[in-house]
Amino acid sequence: MTATPNDVALQSNYDVDYVIRYSFGGPDREEAKEQLNHLLQTLAGVGFQTEVRPGDRSSLLIFIRAPHKSLLRATHTTRVRDWLYGLRHTQPDRDSSPGPQADAERLRAIYYMLTAPSDDGGANITPKFGKWKHVDSLFPLHDDKTNQAWMRDWSKKTFLTNEDLDQIRDKFGEQVGFYFSFLQTYFRFLFFPALFGFSSWLMLGYYSPVYAIVNCVWCVVFVEFWKRKELDLALRWQVRGVSVLSSRNRSFRPESEIRDEATGELRPVFPWTKRLQRQLLQIPFAIVSVVALGAVIATCFAIEIFISEVYNGPLKSYLVFIPTVLLSSILPIASTILTRVAKRLTEFENYETKEDHDVAFIQKMLVINFITSYLAIFLTAFVYVPFAHVIVPYLDIFRATVRPFVSPEDEKTIHHTEFKIDPYRLRNQVIYFAVTAQIVNFFLETILPFILQRLSSKYKKYSEEKANGHEKASAAYDDHPDEVEFLKKVREEADLPEYDTTDDLRQMAIQFGYLSLFSTVWPLVPVSFLFNNWLELRSDFFKICKEFKRPVPERADTIGPWLDTLGFLAWVGSITSPALVYLARSQGLDSGDGIQNPIRGWMLMTTIFFSEHIYLAVRFAVEKTMTKIEMPSIAQERIQKILMRKALISEIPDESLSVGGNEDVTSGVGGEKEEKITRKTLEEDARARTLHDARPSDPFWERQKNWKEALQIGNRIIESYQSTEMKKAE
Amino acid sequence: MTATPNDVALQSNYDVDYVIRYSFGGPDREEAKEQLNHLLQTLAGVGFQTEVRPGDRSSLLIFIRAPHKSLLRATHTTRVRDWLYGLRHTQPDRDSSPGPQADAERLRAIYYMLTAPSDDGGANITPKFGKWKHVDSLFPLHDDKTNQAWMRDWSKKTFLTNEDLDQIRDKFGEQVGFYFSFLQTYFRFLFFPALFGFSSWLMLGYYSPVYAIVNCVWCVVFVEFWKRKELDLALRWQVRGVSVLSSRNRSFRPESEIRDEATGELRPVFPWTKRLQRQLLQIPFAIVSVVALGAVIATCFAIEIFISEVYNGPLKSYLVFIPTVLLSSILPIASTILTRVAKRLTEFENYETKEDHDVAFIQKMLVINFITSYLAIFLTAFVYVPFAHVIVPYLDIFRATVRPFVSPEDEKTIHHTEFKIDPYRLRNQVIYFAVTAQIVNFFLETILPFILQRLSSKYKKYSEEKANGHEKASAAYDDHPDEVEFLKKVREEADLPEYDTTDDLRQMAIQFGYLSLFSTVWPLVPVSFLFNNWLELRSDFFKICKEFKRPVPERADTIGPWLDTLGFLAWVGSITSPALVYLARSQGLDSGDGIQNPIRGWMLMTTIFFSEHIYLAVRFAVEKTMTKIEMPSIAQERIQKILMRKALISEIPDESLSVGGNEDVTSGVGGEKEEKITRKTLEEDARARTLHDARPSDPFWERQKNWKEALQIGNRIIESYQSTEMKKAE
Repeated sequence: MTATPNDVALQSNYDVDYVIRYSFGGPDREEAKEQLNHLLQTLAGVGFQTEVRPGDRSSLLIFIRAPHKSLLRATHTTRVRDWLYGLRHTQPDRDSSPGPQADAERLRAIYYMLTAPSDDGGANITPKFGKWKHVDSLFPLHDDKTNQAWMRDWSKKTFLTNEDLDQIRDKFGEQVGFYFSFLQTYFRFLFFPALFGFSSWLMLGYYSPVYAIVNCVWCVVFVEFWKRKELDLALRWQVRGVSVLSSRNRSFRPESEIRDEATGELRPVFPWTKRLQRQLLQIPFAIVSVVALGAVIATCFAIEIFISEVYNGPLKSYLVFIPTVLLSSILPIASTILTRVAKRLTEFENYETKEDHDVAFIQKMLVINFITSYLAIFLTAFVYVPFAHVIVPYLDIFRATVRPFVSPEDEKTIHHTEFKIDPYRLRNQVIYFAVTAQIVNFFLETILPFILQRLSSKYKKYSEEKANGHEKASAAYDDHPDEVEFLKKVREEADLPEYDTTDDLRQMAIQFGYLSLFSTVWPLVPVSFLFNNWLELRSDFFKICKEFKRPVPERADTIGPWLDTLGFLAWVGSITSPALVYLARSQGLDSGDGIQNPIRGWMLMTTIFFSEHIYLAVRFAVEKTMTKIEMPSIAQERIQKILMRKALISEIPDESLSVGGNEDVTSGVGGEKEEKITRKTLEEDARARTLHDARPSDPFWERQKNWKEALQIGNRIIESYQSTEMKKAE
Repeated sequence: MTATPNDVALQSNYDVDYVIRYSFGGPDREEAKEQLNHLLQTLAGVGFQTEVRPGDRSSLLIFIRAPHKSLLRATHTTRVRDWLYGLRHTQPDRDSSPGPQADAERLRAIYYMLTAPSDDGGANITPKFGKWKHVDSLFPLHDDKTNQAWMRDWSKKTFLTNEDLDQIRDKFGEQVGFYFSFLQTYFRFLFFPALFGFSSWLMLGYYSPVYAIVNCVWCVVFVEFWKRKELDLALRWQVRGVSVLSSRNRSFRPESEIRDEATGELRPVFPWTKRLQRQLLQIPFAIVSVVALGAVIATCFAIEIFISEVYNGPLKSYLVFIPTVLLSSILPIASTILTRVAKRLTEFENYETKEDHDVAFIQKMLVINFITSYLAIFLTAFVYVPFAHVIVPYLDIFRATVRPFVSPEDEKTIHHTEFKIDPYRLRNQVIYFAVTAQIVNFFLETILPFILQRLSSKYKKYSEEKANGHEKASAAYDDHPDEVEFLKKVREEADLPEYDTTDDLRQMAIQFGYLSLFSTVWPLVPVSFLFNNWLELRSDFFKICKEFKRPVPERADTIGPWLDTLGFLAWVGSITSPALVYLARSQGLDSGDGIQNPIRGWMLMTTIFFSEHIYLAVRFAVEKTMTKIEMPSIAQERIQKILMRKALISEIPDESLSVGGNEDVTSGVGGEKEEKITRKTLEEDARARTLHDARPSDPFWERQKNWKEALQIGNRIIESYQSTEMKKAE
């Protein structure tokens, strides 16, 4: 089967760079037409080629291609900006600068031209905002052939190579590249705890202090290694310090404008003191979140314990579902409300840049995420296990609720006097979160959306066919036969949601949390995560390719606030692990025999105190050690800097410049020529000068006319001393 | 009284920039002469003027002056180096660059020329090293008149102004400037705890939890503020990032040489893995230090308790001095040995730069400093107070030692059954360290050396007179009458030791430690430090001016490892303070009535746990808040950067460059001109290109010839949709 020209064109997406979905579904058609005029004119004005095709029923597809010259200009513009902000060492040369090096750079440069303010030579298009409200979305097209080839390739590999990661970065940009690199590094690091956890499970059993220590140390090493790796990647991908290039937060409302000393222009400002006051609202927000979500979870938890472990009456097999039903109905509602509050709060804090805004929002969401993810296990470990005996009698209040449905005979079967804690509860809970929840999540995240999307596209086709009087769907669009397949693909992609690495990174951070906080309970946790993450990497890639629009390549030099989250979780792990080991062992959970020793508070707290401080000391040592490791790109960067200095020196049109530092940059430069000038000229010059304008210090400096005279005097003094010595000796 | 020309010359030190003390006291006089020849020739070669005068009995004084031209060249060289390493934003221009801006810059530039490798155009003089072994020291001369004026001025002021600090920096360089700025900031910050401590002493008494909390928070705020202030100062003094300009460690012994990819030259290297292994020796070193010094202190401590509180026999009034005598004889010996080991260890670790070497040495010394400074109080607070009852009976071993000297009757008076802990011991100890030791230290550090120095100079004069057969001393040198006074001053200064900020900074860090760790015991600690530090600042300045050679101005952008030390001490303070409060209150130390409640371990540990974590949370919040504060120089830096970008853009000879970022650097640049080029040319150009080399995607892009056609199609689609809608409506 040979590829027809049309197949080739299809593979390259007909050279389309970006597609705009322009929806005209609103009531005002004339306005839509006028704005379309404006849009097309602007695009042409900035130098883009456009083609219009029908979209779905109430939208147009505008295809955008950047001709070679526009593309060069766009790339050059972004490179100059990089250079000005210190991201590149050398000033890009307009004439010799090559075109974009990769898909991601090309798409990023074009995106910049499409969205930059018109003052900066861009088209200033902001989807769904102000005069662009008809612009529904702006997206590049997936490169299906490459994507499929990669998926096929990776499904046969255990590890992605550095080249694979570079390719992801070249296709999807640095942000996605960082996510996959993180996932890959995490996966690679998991081998050790998986092996150790497995052998520990075989030999040491549950709640092993040895496993807890090794696990904590591993967490530190991993987090610190990733910090270093991140720097290495940032240098490798030339994005170090890219966060200075922040983009404006559209919802920023300045309080006043001040004249900028530098530019002489009015600059919108919002005083930091005021923002700080508003940020203080985070504290009540966090408290409310903890209390609200905590109350829901704790109540359901209490009901569940009562029903499953205390209650023994009728309908037990049905009643056990009550807490689950309650939890899965109330928790999402509470989360949604809190998320909305977090969003409002972040907007109220009024950040100037989009990046600050996003980080502030993520931080608030972390509180909610932590509670929903970890609180249940925390309650079991630190309330149920040590205090069950104290608390369970109070659960009698639920008996009152049950009474109407229970006959007095049955009521006797509610026995809490012989209550004994369930030694497997904690472990089962951890297994649930480490295995079952991961599998459920995989289905919810990858399989289900794919099925739903197929169904919805079928339904859409069906309803369109119906609307067009049962004609054939494609005929409704009147597409050119060559383009039918391509336009079908584009229409499908236009319907997909936009991808954001945040959710995937959050999921990984939460997963890391289970590992660092609770894996002492069941040392097979890392084994489960190891398998899960092999799949996760591939399924996430599949997800990006099939279930989302192709993301606009964005740059990043870090995984952002998640890095701090990982560090924080590792730290908390150093507190929970020893506490779990101590509590579980004293309650006999490790052997399951249920022999309970009294919990000694001072011993528990002292264990935690030392464990935490040893953790901090180890972290300090590992941090210091990591900075010593010279990673390839970091070494490369150092050499680059030296070369740049050399180049700069050679550019300076100066005969006698000699500069040196630690790295001996200029050894050999200067020197000889210098000698000639200075030896005579400088000295004579100086002597001559002193004759011209007489200064009070002149007599002092004229006693010895030049260095030879000074030497004579010096020798005379040495000799005179010598002679006094001799005299004395005589 | 009018100033004679000679007075004026004297005030300006006869325009002398540096003085070399050249000692020829060794056995080989001929070698000394030859090297003097070499030295003077080198100095002349690099462009310095020299004058030779006799020094003391076996040394010469070589006076060095840099003529204007050499000076300009030296300044320019250092500035270019700064620019290459990113310390200056703009490339210095040789012709228009002004001379040195301040004394410190002049002296630093000249020092660089004197000591830089000859490849870099310097004279490569290294005092007391290799072929320069006769060069005893190399130092600038004090500017006595200015120093005296400042001392007089400051003695009348409470606070130094920013201008005063700038002047210190201009005279003595940034490193000394940073020390005084730190001292000044610390002094200013002390007002709050001094006031609060005083009122707390009046109203809340000792061991007040309120005072402990306020003190901890104050420590955090101070340390974080200083971090910010340091950055501000570094920008104000243009030294930010100056640590990249590291100087070579003379004792560095490379393991091998590798060819540097960048310079193509052989570069000496020492593998970091090997250094890391050697650094591991720090751990046994720290353990040995702790054990050795700890054993000495603990033993003396035990003896002291036995004698002062248990023993009641004869000779008690003499015996109480035993521990003091032991301590003050053994401790210095142990410290000296450990210091020597630390020095050897640091050399063994083989650092490439002097800066790394110094930091590593300081870190090791910190262990020793901490033990000698704080261990005694720690033992009282955390061993004596809670465990005295348990431990004191074991002190009976000392009774065996005492027995030979004690009659059986007297022995009965040794009673430890009725032992009661001394409620004032801890407080008295803190008062000793906070008040008495500070005063003693002031005498030892400032007054005593001054007296000793006077005496030694008298003795020297006397012995010289004797050597010269009772002639008049000055006549022995045969000085010119005009120069007698000046040369006397220089000879005196040549005898002084060299100044280093390390000791003074260490002293302040240790002082801060008493405040953060133990001031809950006696809330007047900050009051004492407030008075002490007012004096400290002045006396340290006096010390530098009178008891040390004028320091060679060195640059720095931080107070170095001391900053971490302060942070560490504040952190430990958050652990010791609540522990002290809890222990003291449960032992009845606060009221002094000695009513003892049992110490509950879990409560103590829980208190510490929460206190520490609240401290960490507060520190995190304060850190975040501090970064929001825009300090004057930091704002200035931002503006500088914008201006630099603007300047760079204006230099680019490009007609259509439009670059923008967050700060809207280039608003107005580009734009209109652009429009003309692109609107027609680009589009036409692109269309034209597609005609030349046919590509598979061409048919797709040729359906609509330009944006107007695209618009027509678009409008038609919108209308057709409209008509279907209408049809349906009909």
